[in-house]
Amino acid sequence: MTQHEHRLGELAKRFGGEVVGGGTDLVIKRLASLRSAQSGDITFFSHGRYRDELAGTRASAVIVGEDARDATGLPRIVCSDPYLFFAQVARLYHTEESARPGVHASAVVLPGAHLAPDVSVGPLCVIEEEVEISSGSRIGPGCSLGRKVRIGSGARLHAGVTVYAGCEIGERTILHSGVVVGADGFGFAPNAGAWLKIPQLGSVRIGADVEIGANTTIDRGALDDTVIEDGVKLDNQIQIGHNVRIGAHTAIAGCVGIAGSTRIGSRCMIGGAAMIGGHLNIADRVIVAGGTVVTKSLDSAGTYVSVIPATPAREWRRTVAMLRNLERMSERLRLLERRLADLENEK
Amino acid sequence: MTQHEHRLGELAKRFGGEVVGGGTDLVIKRLASLRSAQSGDITFFSHGRYRDELAGTRASAVIVGEDARDATGLPRIVCSDPYLFFAQVARLYHTEESARPGVHASAVVLPGAHLAPDVSVGPLCVIEEEVEISSGSRIGPGCSLGRKVRIGSGARLHAGVTVYAGCEIGERTILHSGVVVGADGFGFAPNAGAWLKIPQLGSVRIGADVEIGANTTIDRGALDDTVIEDGVKLDNQIQIGHNVRIGAHTAIAGCVGIAGSTRIGSRCMIGGAAMIGGHLNIADRVIVAGGTVVTKSLDSAGTYVSVIPATPAREWRRTVAMLRNLERMSERLRLLERRLADLENEK
Amino acid sequence: MTQHEHRLGELAKRFGGEVVGGGTDLVIKRLASLRSAQSGDITFFSHGRYRDELAGTRASAVIVGEDARDATGLPRIVCSDPYLFFAQVARLYHTEESARPGVHASAVVLPGAHLAPDVSVGPLCVIEEEVEISSGSRIGPGCSLGRKVRIGSGARLHAGVTVYAGCEIGERTILHSGVVVGADGFGFAPNAGAWLKIPQLGSVRIGADVEIGANTTIDRGALDDTVIEDGVKLDNQIQIGHNVRIGAHTAIAGCVGIAGSTRIGSRCMIGGAAMIGGHLNIADRVIVAGGTVVTKSLDSAGTYVSVIPATPAREWRRTVAMLRNLERMSERLRLLERRLADLENEK
Repeated sequence: MTQHEHRLGELAKRFGGEVVGGGTDLVIKRLASLRSAQSGDITFFSHGRYRDELAGTRASAVIVGEDARDATGLPRIVCSDPYLFFAQVARLYHTEESARPGVHASAVVLPGAHLAPDVSVGPLCVIEEEVEISSGSRIGPGCSLGRKVRIGSGARLHAGVTVYAGCEIGERTILHSGVVVGADGFGFAPNAGAWLKIPQLGSVRIGADVEIGANTTIDRGALDDTVIEDGVKLDNQIQIGHNVRIGAHTAIAGCVGIAGSTRIGSRCMIGGAAMIGGHLNIADRVIVAGGTVVTKSLDSAGTYVSVIPATPAREWRRTVAMLRNLERMSERLRLLERRLADLENEK
Repeated sequence: MTQHEHRLGELAKRFGGEVVGGGTDLVIKRLASLRSAQSGDITFFSHGRYRDELAGTRASAVIVGEDARDATGLPRIVCSDPYLFFAQVARLYHTEESARPGVHASAVVLPGAHLAPDVSVGPLCVIEEEVEISSGSRIGPGCSLGRKVRIGSGARLHAGVTVYAGCEIGERTILHSGVVVGADGFGFAPNAGAWLKIPQLGSVRIGADVEIGANTTIDRGALDDTVIEDGVKLDNQIQIGHNVRIGAHTAIAGCVGIAGSTRIGSRCMIGGAAMIGGHLNIADRVIVAGGTVVTKSLDSAGTYVSVIPATPAREWRRTVAMLRNLERMSERLRLLERRLADLENEK
Repeated sequence: MTQHEHRLGELAKRFGGEVVGGGTDLVIKRLASLRSAQSGDITFFSHGRYRDELAGTRASAVIVGEDARDATGLPRIVCSDPYLFFAQVARLYHTEESARPGVHASAVVLPGAHLAPDVSVGPLCVIEEEVEISSGSRIGPGCSLGRKVRIGSGARLHAGVTVYAGCEIGERTILHSGVVVGADGFGFAPNAGAWLKIPQLGSVRIGADVEIGANTTIDRGALDDTVIEDGVKLDNQIQIGHNVRIGAHTAIAGCVGIAGSTRIGSRCMIGGAAMIGGHLNIADRVIVAGGTVVTKSLDSAGTYVSVIPATPAREWRRTVAMLRNLERMSERLRLLERRLADLENEK
């Protein structure tokens, strides 16, 4: 069997599952979704929503949870967390394209940069003075690393990442294309009808095992540093203001904005397009629903929302009119209560 | 007459309008807005909002709809759709700067890339192994195309576009600067308090005649591909999650986010900054108003909203207090109803 | 004393404050936040929220406002605007890294570009035909300037900025990494079920002393220009549509979107993630709270909001149900009023 073929029983054993419905010796060649799987593929079922697709799948085997042990007659691996199991199998089958170690001839490496010998620097990168890149890191094409940037070992910067002077990227951290780390925070003092720029003297420190999605921006601190702790996962197009601190293993979905000096706890989950104001404290394990606006500190774990779901336009127009009318409704209520009390007293 | 001068009668004939108010032989040298037009210019009037500007315009001629046939005394072209007519005239007058065919000496083209002979590749591009670029395509300065990327004929990538390995861009598709196609989707499985990265094994397939605005990001699929169908128009700063599918000729305004695995129908219109949750189905011809949050599937065509318009702060504070108070209001109503029924029964 | 050491009394005198609590001769070596300050540092206190941190600071001196004259026993500078005072001190202590004048050998400068002799152009830039860069400007690594772009004197473009053909950047204006100026506006005319692209013939004109944050995008006009007036400050990830005009000294926080043809007055403040519709007029000195959606023109100065703050999920679910129920509540009110009137009449 090639590197990318494993028997079903082997997968079950390796990641802690039970083969049900036969097929322990099935050779699994590929992972695929319920919908697109073919013979030789393994797929997974982790949400009741996809029951119809499970019924129609042409996969040779399925990863299912304990509660879905009998949801299919196909050979299956039953396990406690099918999504995690699938992730582990996917990692087994995925071979990352290897990078050529060395600095591409077209890259510009300025004097005093220090690169470990096995580092890969792609074409047309700019590595400024006193940059340090540790062992095993891969810098994609067209990246720009300012003076004294430090990149931990095993990090990966995809094409077109920009890191401003003095910022630090932790071990095994992944930055996707278009990420900008360390641009000036938005700091201006009002001064006679105009704005006086406040130099942004802090830096950005990003921990280990962080992943940051495409076109996300993280500003440098004004005085202290902006800090992203270990294991944080940031999706695309997120904006992190200056002096923000994000606690370990917090996950933030796309298009979120976090204003300056806010502290987010560890193991939080922030839904897409949520907006979090400045100078707030968000406790550990807070869940903020997508699209929610946070304007005050959230001091205890729990789920917070403020989103009104999309509504047919005609109905919504009436709801907004009602909203504008709430004070008058409240007034009418008060009046009714008074009149009713009068009547009751007269009896 | 030079290439860029046309007589009014000729424009009317070419795009299907009627010259009214004389001036068939007027030479039109330029397009301009109502406000900035000068003698020799043609302008257009497509919205009553701009009636004052129409009255004051110094244009030599105006494109108007049937309903505005008499809205001006200037020479005019009356047509069924003045905005479309204007678009056609604009295309006639616009000459795109021609690109020099060939690969700029400073671009890095890795072995095994295959470029049609008339392709233009700008300075400082990186074209990786096995990339295919078809006839007539123009790749702007500083673009980065990963391994096995395929670019259809007549496509245009402006400066600084990044396409990750394996993604496909259709014929005549336009990508603006800062677009990132094919970064990893946001896929992590919770694992003992941390997050395990799920390899993103799918790709991105973008159809023909698509246009994608500056700094928009489209993630690659987890297992299947993310798909943008023919004729889709995406504005700037949009985020498209993994495994999303967007139907043909749908138009999406700036700052919209679409979470993973959602399917948008064809010919939809999504307003700016709308946010659409994951794993949803949006029917064909759905219109979502700007700023609206979609958290459930929308199964039929129509217009959907959930936005409360900006309100003076003092008034809004009272509205929010009222909102917080709705349950008590409802309770007071119930009580009133009971007391009133008692009174009525006593009669 | 080195260039970066000043005595407390000297700072007070230079920027207009009064030394209180002794220490006129204290040598100040560094600025720091209340929290991280050490001996030799000066810090500032401008918000009551940080009173605890003031109590615990290890700074040698503090900048405070008149109202906080006695808030600490440390040597302090009392002044009318401690935030502005701090900004001025920070500017004094901040030395920007100097750029090497000249064009880096790896940059590509096309024929007919005109660069003042003291301009600095970083590695791997692309400067197209007929670009003009005035005296003292610094172009960071990997920037791309299209044909006929004009950069005013003393401007600074950080790494990876893209300016499309024909756009103008004013004196001393700062553009951060990933900024895209002059991409096509989102202009399409519906045409037989598809979209016809409208050439975007206008440009972008950015005034003097503007600052634009990372990954912000500003589209070129359709016919007239998009205009950003002097002193405007734009944070990261902002989207400015075509033909928008932003008045002088307006400040806009991160993630804001402004749709096409809207005019924003001067000295406005727009909070993060606010969304402003197209074809609107926003008066001078308007303040829009973060997250607010503006769908109509705002004709007078004042503060506008439409945001509902995050709420615990269970409570929020009931509020939304109540919202859906407002019409029935209103109906019940009407009925009560009628029945009560009947009772009152019967008396």
